Amino acid sequence: MRIALLGGTGDIGEGLALRFARDTDHEVLIGSRDPEKARDAVADYESILEDHGADATVKGFANEMAADRADVVVLSVPPYYAGDTVDAVADTLDEETILVTPAVGMQGDEDGMHYHPPGAGSVTELVAQRAPDAVPVVGAFHNLAAGKLADLDAEFDLDTLVVADDDGAKKTVRDLAGEIEGLRALDAGPLGNAAEVESVTPLVINIAKYNEELHDVGVKWI
Amino acid sequence: MRIALLGGTGDIGEGLALRFARDTDHEVLIGSRDPEKARDAVADYESILEDHGADATVKGFANEMAADRADVVVLSVPPYYAGDTVDAVADTLDEETILVTPAVGMQGDEDGMHYHPPGAGSVTELVAQRAPDAVPVVGAFHNLAAGKLADLDAEFDLDTLVVADDDGAKKTVRDLAGEIEGLRALDAGPLGNAAEVESVTPLVINIAKYNEELHDVGVKWI
Repeated sequence: MRIALLGGTGDIGEGLALRFARDTDHEVLIGSRDPEKARDAVADYESILEDHGADATVKGFANEMAADRADVVVLSVPPYYAGDTVDAVADTLDEETILVTPAVGMQGDEDGMHYHPPGAGSVTELVAQRAPDAVPVVGAFHNLAAGKLADLDAEFDLDTLVVADDDGAKKTVRDLAGEIEGLRALDAGPLGNAAEVESVTPLVINIAKYNEELHDVGVKWI
Repeated sequence: MRIALLGGTGDIGEGLALRFARDTDHEVLIGSRDPEKARDAVADYESILEDHGADATVKGFANEMAADRADVVVLSVPPYYAGDTVDAVADTLDEETILVTPAVGMQGDEDGMHYHPPGAGSVTELVAQRAPDAVPVVGAFHNLAAGKLADLDAEFDLDTLVVADDDGAKKTVRDLAGEIEGLRALDAGPLGNAAEVESVTPLVINIAKYNEELHDVGVKWI
């Protein structure tokens, strides 16, 4: 399968790129609004992968090119770019392309981070509204510890929660996520349950802020 | 210390009563609007504790009497009774009494459960608004797996998140929670961070609904 990580030069994009490249046989495409930036990130990722003995190929493209080539497109962009990024790549998507969104709307104050969803109810539902009707949309990879995800030496045993209305697309993404070593993908139901999933992201940031021993924290549901 | 569990005949009240009674030396008081119901629950709990070889005394009272005698008062009532229960026991509370709230506002639909906070932003903040000013309010015990909590034979290794503006009260409740075997109490910051903590409760219900192997699920932050 081909996996495009749009905004794949950011935190979550880097971690997913490295782990998909190291742990799976799928082809990883890094997308960026600036293809030069995508290619620079690819050089970094290939160097990290080589240092870890992984003989993986990662390719860099403009977002539109990456999305056009991919079977699974991950919108690893900040939440306020999610809608515009969907619009920018909409022509390259069809019912054969699964659109995955890990972004979460948050606002910080002196206490910590707070969940701040868009009017659609969640970024996941906003993406579903903006995507062409035939394109299956899946929410996943929201609450991962970004530092641990991008550190291939880190001990990694975390869960991710997956929401979708399309059962086939949900299964594909759960299977794909499960191919990452130490990652378990649980079913959190339809897109209408996305807000509760997304709101864990500000919470893990708050837990990291107030507990010294948990500076880069993720979650296991047990 | 004396711990009063108001509404201590319900799910979370039962689990906390059994585990505080078995695992700590503190005195456990069960409160109910109907003292007869409290005494019936106490008989059940003492029988369960005896079956598990625990020689613990639990006492049953009307909510006001239980609160009056306690150092820590846990509002283990449904969220829509939380405010009225605070009003009912307000005269028995003072700056020496810590008021703990585990309740969460939720609404269900065909997809699952959804976080539905009161206008105060969270049940925890609503309780803080309704309590007399001098009384320290702590949010804790929100996201526990109620079945596991009340089953003294269940494998139990879960986290609870604690929020409070009063650092002393927060520490007391974290220490108290930590005395329950297999329970770790993490700091989630001030009361202003309560909504993100509370919103995990509908999420664990959704995870239980959609994952067969997790029918009574809790959370570890790792």
